[in-house]
Amino acid sequence: MCRQYDRQVLCRQICAQRSWPIISWRAASTTFKAADLQVELNKHPKEKPAVKDLVFGKTFTDHMLTIEWTNEKGWGKPQIKPFQNLSLHPASSALHYSVELFEGMKAYRGEDNQIRLFRPMLNMERMHRTALRACLPSYDKAELLECLRRLLDIDRDWVPKSTSASLYIRPTFIGTEPSLGVTKSNHALLYIIVGPVGPYFPTGGFTPVSLLADPKYVRAWTGGVGNYKLGGNYGPTIYVQNEATKEGCQQVLWLYGDDHQVTEAGTMNFFMYWINEQGEKELVTAPLSGLILPGVTRQSLLDLARKWGEFKVSERTFTMAEVLWGLKENRIKELFGAGTACVVCPVNRIVYNGESYNIPTMENGPDMAKRFLKELSDIQYGRTPSDWTYLV
Amino acid sequence: MCRQYDRQVLCRQICAQRSWPIISWRAASTTFKAADLQVELNKHPKEKPAVKDLVFGKTFTDHMLTIEWTNEKGWGKPQIKPFQNLSLHPASSALHYSVELFEGMKAYRGEDNQIRLFRPMLNMERMHRTALRACLPSYDKAELLECLRRLLDIDRDWVPKSTSASLYIRPTFIGTEPSLGVTKSNHALLYIIVGPVGPYFPTGGFTPVSLLADPKYVRAWTGGVGNYKLGGNYGPTIYVQNEATKEGCQQVLWLYGDDHQVTEAGTMNFFMYWINEQGEKELVTAPLSGLILPGVTRQSLLDLARKWGEFKVSERTFTMAEVLWGLKENRIKELFGAGTACVVCPVNRIVYNGESYNIPTMENGPDMAKRFLKELSDIQYGRTPSDWTYLV
Repeated sequence: MCRQYDRQVLCRQICAQRSWPIISWRAASTTFKAADLQVELNKHPKEKPAVKDLVFGKTFTDHMLTIEWTNEKGWGKPQIKPFQNLSLHPASSALHYSVELFEGMKAYRGEDNQIRLFRPMLNMERMHRTALRACLPSYDKAELLECLRRLLDIDRDWVPKSTSASLYIRPTFIGTEPSLGVTKSNHALLYIIVGPVGPYFPTGGFTPVSLLADPKYVRAWTGGVGNYKLGGNYGPTIYVQNEATKEGCQQVLWLYGDDHQVTEAGTMNFFMYWINEQGEKELVTAPLSGLILPGVTRQSLLDLARKWGEFKVSERTFTMAEVLWGLKENRIKELFGAGTACVVCPVNRIVYNGESYNIPTMENGPDMAKRFLKELSDIQYGRTPSDWTYLV
Repeated sequence: MCRQYDRQVLCRQICAQRSWPIISWRAASTTFKAADLQVELNKHPKEKPAVKDLVFGKTFTDHMLTIEWTNEKGWGKPQIKPFQNLSLHPASSALHYSVELFEGMKAYRGEDNQIRLFRPMLNMERMHRTALRACLPSYDKAELLECLRRLLDIDRDWVPKSTSASLYIRPTFIGTEPSLGVTKSNHALLYIIVGPVGPYFPTGGFTPVSLLADPKYVRAWTGGVGNYKLGGNYGPTIYVQNEATKEGCQQVLWLYGDDHQVTEAGTMNFFMYWINEQGEKELVTAPLSGLILPGVTRQSLLDLARKWGEFKVSERTFTMAEVLWGLKENRIKELFGAGTACVVCPVNRIVYNGESYNIPTMENGPDMAKRFLKELSDIQYGRTPSDWTYLV
C-alpha cells in the first residue's frame, strides 16, 4: 500500500524539478486530500460496551468520516464529526437505484497495544473499482486510507483490548443525486462508520455451519456485477438466507450454471481442501471470472498456501458433482468459507437436491482451517511481523 | 382495484354479523390504515414550474407521504407532511445492502379537470410482491392506494393542466435497519414522492431511439430478481447506458443467454410487430419467465391487442437471430419499447455485433405504436371511459 504514497511523492518531486507550479497540479487533481480534513470532536462520547456484549454491526463509535462530492464542485473537504444520522433527499439515487457500494475491513489491537489494519490497500482498490462500475467519482485511494487512519486514531480507544475482538470498518459510498432519472449521479457521499465487534466464534473454537445448496437461487451471473461490492448483490440474498434457515441450514451455498458450479457461501468465498483425482492434495476455490467477490481473505489464503508450497493451489471452476464424488470417495478433508468476519468458517453439512451430506471438516481437525486462522490472526494481531499490516 | 375495498367491506360485514368485536380485527391487522392519516400542510408552498420547463424527476410537489414500520411496533400512522429530507441512520440497510424498491405511476388531468390514475392496483400488487422478496413487511395494498389518493388530493394543483404532461408518482420502500448484519430489516420506511413531468416526446410526434445490443452485459438472469422492481436492478445499468452512449446509441437492448434472447430495452419492456414465418401478423414480447419486469404498460398493450383480436399476440422467447432474419426478409414492421414514461417508444436502429441495423419502425407509421399511444392516452386523460382508470 505504500506505492500510492510513493507515486505522489514522486509526482511532487517531478513537479518541483520541472518548476511546475504546485497550484496547477492541485487544480487538476480530482480527489479529496487527507491534509484538508476538518475535525469536529464529539462532546458527548458514549460508554464503550464490554467485548462479551458486542453484537456484529450494532455498536458504532463516537465519530464518522464524511466526504461530499458534486459534479459541479468536485470533492469537498473530508470531515470527521460526531456519529450522526444522514440527511438525504428522498429522491437520492442510492435509495431508488441502489447507486451504493461498501467495503468491510477490521482494525486489530495487538498485545503490543499497536493498532493494525490488514492489507487495507486491497480494500481501497476494490472499493475504487466498484465506484467506477457504479459511475461514482474517482479519488486517490491512498488519501482515503489516510482519512480512515485519522478516524481510527481519533476513535482508537474503541478498538477492543482483546486479541479475539476487533473494530469493524465500513467504508460506504452512495449516490445522492436528488432526481429520478436512471443516470450518473451528480451528487455523491463517501462515508466511513466503524464499530467494535466480538469474536466470530464466541466459544473460542470453531463452530461449523451447514449450507443449503439450491440451484433455484443464483447470486450472480456472467455479464453481471457479482465481482463488485455493490449493495444490490446483498439485498436479494436475505430472502434466500431465510429459505436456508427454513431448511435447517445456517447459510447458503451459491451455485451457478447447469453444472452447479460452487461459487460462494453466504457472504464468504468458499474453499475445498481434498485429495484430487491425481491423488494430489489440492486447495480449490472458484476463479475470479466475474461470478464471485474477489475477497481479501481469499487472496490471503491463496498467497499463504502458495508461499508454503506444500500442496497444489487451484483457482478453478469446480462443481457439486466433484464435491459429491470427493465425499463418496473420502477425498474431501475440509470445506470452509473465508471472509473478513470469520477468517475461515468450517462447513459440516450441505443440503443439496433434497439430500443432506455430512462433511468431515471438523473430524479432520480442521487442520487446514486452523492453520490459516492462526497464521492470519498472528499477522493481524502483530504476533508475526508482516508487510501485510499497516499501523494506525 | 375495487376488489380490495370490497374484501374489507365484506370482512367488516362478516365481523358485524358474527358480533366479533371490531377491536380484535384491528389488533390482528398488520397494516397501516388510510383512516389514521395525519396531515401537516406545507406552510410554504413552492411556485409551480411551467410545463415546458419540466425535466423528468427533478421537480417535486409540496408534500410527501411517509409510513414507518418496526418489527417491534408494526406499522405507524401514515403521515402526509411537507416535502423534506429523510434522516437516516448511516448503517441503514437500504444504503448498504440495497434493501429498497420502488414503483413508477402517473396521475393525469383530463379535459374534464378530473384527475385519474391508470390501473394503480397493478402497481400496488407489484410493489407488494417486491416488498416480500426484499423481506420488507406486508400491508394492505388498498390502504396504500387510498393514502396515495389523499396525497394526490392535497397536491392536486400540481397535476399539470395539460393532456401531454402528467404527475409522476414514486412510491418507495426502504429498509432502515440501523445495523450491519445482512439480515431481515427490523425497521422500514415506505414513502411516496410525486412531481410534475412534461411530455416524453416534446415535439408532439414520436422521436425514435437507437439501441446498443451487446451480449456482454446482462441485466437479469434465471434464478435472480429481474422480475422485481428492486433498486439493485437499476444502478448497474447506468454504466452500460454510458457504454451505449459511447457507441452512439441512446439506450440498451438487453439480451440474455447464448442465443441472445431479446428481453428489455433501457427500463422499458420491448415489442416486435412483424409478419412471422407462417405469414401471420404477430405482436411479440418476451414472456414473464423471471427475466423481465412485468410492466403495467406491457400488460395493457397485450390486453388491448387481444381485445382487438386482429392479429396474433405472443408472449414468447424471441432472439436477435429472429429479429435479423425478419429485417432481412422485410417482415419487421415496428420495434418499440413500452413503459409508463413514454407509453410506447419507437426504435429506428440497433447496433449488434459491430453492425448497425436500420429498423423501419418510423417508415411504417409507426401505425401500431401510434394506435397504442392514442388508445392508452385516451383512457388516461379520460377521453375514453374505462374501468382501467381510478379517479382521485
